[in-house]
Amino acid sequence: MRIEVVAVGTELLLGQIADTNSAWLGEQMALGGVDSHFHQAVGDNLERIVLALRTALARSDGVVVCGGLGPTHDDITRDAIAAVMNVALVRDPAIVERIGQMFSTRGRAMPESNGRQADVPVGATPITQMLGTAPGLICPVGHKVIYALPGVPYEMYEMFSRAVLPDLRRRMAEQGDTAVIESRVVRTWGMSESGLAELLAPRIEALDAAGGNPTIAFLASGIEGIKVRITAKAADTEAAEALLGAEEEQVRAIVGEATFGVDDDTMESVVADLLKARRLTLGLAESLTGGLVASRLVAVPGASDWFRGSIVSYASDVKYALLGVPAGPVVSAEAARAMADGARRVLGADVGLALTGVAGPDSAEDQPPGTVFVGLARPGAETESLEAHLPGDRDRVRQYANISALDLLRRRLIHDGSG
Amino acid sequence: MRIEVVAVGTELLLGQIADTNSAWLGEQMALGGVDSHFHQAVGDNLERIVLALRTALARSDGVVVCGGLGPTHDDITRDAIAAVMNVALVRDPAIVERIGQMFSTRGRAMPESNGRQADVPVGATPITQMLGTAPGLICPVGHKVIYALPGVPYEMYEMFSRAVLPDLRRRMAEQGDTAVIESRVVRTWGMSESGLAELLAPRIEALDAAGGNPTIAFLASGIEGIKVRITAKAADTEAAEALLGAEEEQVRAIVGEATFGVDDDTMESVVADLLKARRLTLGLAESLTGGLVASRLVAVPGASDWFRGSIVSYASDVKYALLGVPAGPVVSAEAARAMADGARRVLGADVGLALTGVAGPDSAEDQPPGTVFVGLARPGAETESLEAHLPGDRDRVRQYANISALDLLRRRLIHDGSG
Repeated sequence: MRIEVVAVGTELLLGQIADTNSAWLGEQMALGGVDSHFHQAVGDNLERIVLALRTALARSDGVVVCGGLGPTHDDITRDAIAAVMNVALVRDPAIVERIGQMFSTRGRAMPESNGRQADVPVGATPITQMLGTAPGLICPVGHKVIYALPGVPYEMYEMFSRAVLPDLRRRMAEQGDTAVIESRVVRTWGMSESGLAELLAPRIEALDAAGGNPTIAFLASGIEGIKVRITAKAADTEAAEALLGAEEEQVRAIVGEATFGVDDDTMESVVADLLKARRLTLGLAESLTGGLVASRLVAVPGASDWFRGSIVSYASDVKYALLGVPAGPVVSAEAARAMADGARRVLGADVGLALTGVAGPDSAEDQPPGTVFVGLARPGAETESLEAHLPGDRDRVRQYANISALDLLRRRLIHDGSG
Repeated sequence: MRIEVVAVGTELLLGQIADTNSAWLGEQMALGGVDSHFHQAVGDNLERIVLALRTALARSDGVVVCGGLGPTHDDITRDAIAAVMNVALVRDPAIVERIGQMFSTRGRAMPESNGRQADVPVGATPITQMLGTAPGLICPVGHKVIYALPGVPYEMYEMFSRAVLPDLRRRMAEQGDTAVIESRVVRTWGMSESGLAELLAPRIEALDAAGGNPTIAFLASGIEGIKVRITAKAADTEAAEALLGAEEEQVRAIVGEATFGVDDDTMESVVADLLKARRLTLGLAESLTGGLVASRLVAVPGASDWFRGSIVSYASDVKYALLGVPAGPVVSAEAARAMADGARRVLGADVGLALTGVAGPDSAEDQPPGTVFVGLARPGAETESLEAHLPGDRDRVRQYANISALDLLRRRLIHDGSG
């Protein structure tokens, strides 16, 4: 089954935003066994959206059109689909009521223009919106199909996974295409892509020689480390999962401790699990990261069980006065250790983790941008520090510092538990 | 003149990389006064690239095709163009020599496969490559044109600016089209997209009636607020800027204080400018946002001039002990005010801004997710609080809380300065 993605929005043509929706849809469809031979982007213009949809239907089995379902006068994807289907748009009172309720729970009246979002081409089936106001649409066109999804990424992701992919799978099954493609991502930190590729080269050759199922590919993900994606094709989900599980074990054995998790695991969620298992609480002291480490840790559900807080000591005299850092340079191993001890004490935490350094673009205390010191204070061990020299601009130095500090904590907690 | 971008590469369809080349080309063309009504992406398949190029030539005046000029067997853009032009490919000895020299200066022999990069469709003009091995191509097709550029971003940028844009401008001048298109984005916070659209509807109608120059469009940017984009076409940059400036004034007058900036302004950079202008320092106390507000503020260059730090008091007893919040509920207006006073005192700041609330997914202290209290303490004013009920999941509640709190500070600082 071949599905073409059509992204709607003049802002895409003008380059004001990159088209990440099409990339996400392409990836999800590939993983679901759906082919995609073409993508298009088109502006907010009725005639051109109609032309793009007709072009897509002529060369593919269906279309996922994304964007242009909002309430304003340039949201005309509904009109374009009705024109392609050659039917009228009819307002659906149930959708009007649902949108009205969304506004009233926020204590506001529904603006007249939102009524347009309830317009449905005759013969199309609306997809209930769970997160926003714009419902999606499943629109038959002869024996082909147009799926319309909102352009807001998190609304689109939810609606595609819940309603579009199952519908596509059902259509494929009707055509006898029931193979399942599944993938698993092994997440690593601390190795280069080429280093990892060298380490895994013999395994990849062995898989190729054995028929190329599963396959292994690398995804360099910058500040999130290098991902190793294992992809397996099988008759059903269970068989695919079995292949993935066996291959994950192989990869873990080869890569070792640089593997920190799989799929949706993040460095934060892995550290959280280790802290909970060891019944330890964590307090932070952050200088160059300015609260970044704390903000990423609290994104883990249930963080209040083990996270005490963070002292973001951006000004030097806050480090001296509040954290007890001795007078002197603050970009140093000594300051990082004093900050870690201070975080433990001031926040009443079992473990204290601290970061100080130079985010850039200028040097500070004669240290070049990218210089970072991590301090770690924990029960039953001397307070230690780690010096790192990280590449990139201000934002990348901060992100690398964050994950480097959490990785140090992760490696220590693994050994504390087994020691 | 209408130019369509065709991006070549199976990795684009599979979502392994987002198509940032097309976004960049779209932006550069718009700034150069070139219209772009469609973009396409297509995989490394001869038949489909030919179809994509023919589709583009049928609906546009020309094509910029990007990618597929490398030396490997899946680099077939040259072959596809020759098929569309219905001519042969002929190897250009001057290009072979140039590529050979590039390899020899690196002390390596040119691999046989690189010879393919010297193949030129009969009638096409090569564009000399300055940075890599793949030359570009300018290929006449009847009275239309195909420009072929390499997919490596920095090679593509250089070649487009040096050779393609001047050629496009020359063709446009021949047709008497020397117009310039410029745009400006007015950034707003605190109004819904539909509310803003209703407010601006009379102005948009007036512009339409007067010939549609400039135009106004909306970009919903979720946690970053709603953007209003003004686009103007004029004989030269100066005239376009004058139109934009006049229209920005109109929009600001209609939208009022919900306008916080233009173009690259962020809520953080605007608050930073106001604090610097008033010579005030800022200290934070964060609970539900967990350091997010601090981490976004330190992204503003020069933050150390006015930012003292943040007390991320995630655990309740840190609020009581360190910030002096009175025993009792911590999701309350009283707690927010005490936290703001505490942040000022503990961090030695002129202004204290505090956030407490329920990020979700569960309720806390009988308050539903999305309940947020902001506290603000500043010189010469009583410490105040703001209650907000924000939509979305955990992450969105935090992001909305961040910008809501900074917006309160922004509005107060504006009036402090003018009072």
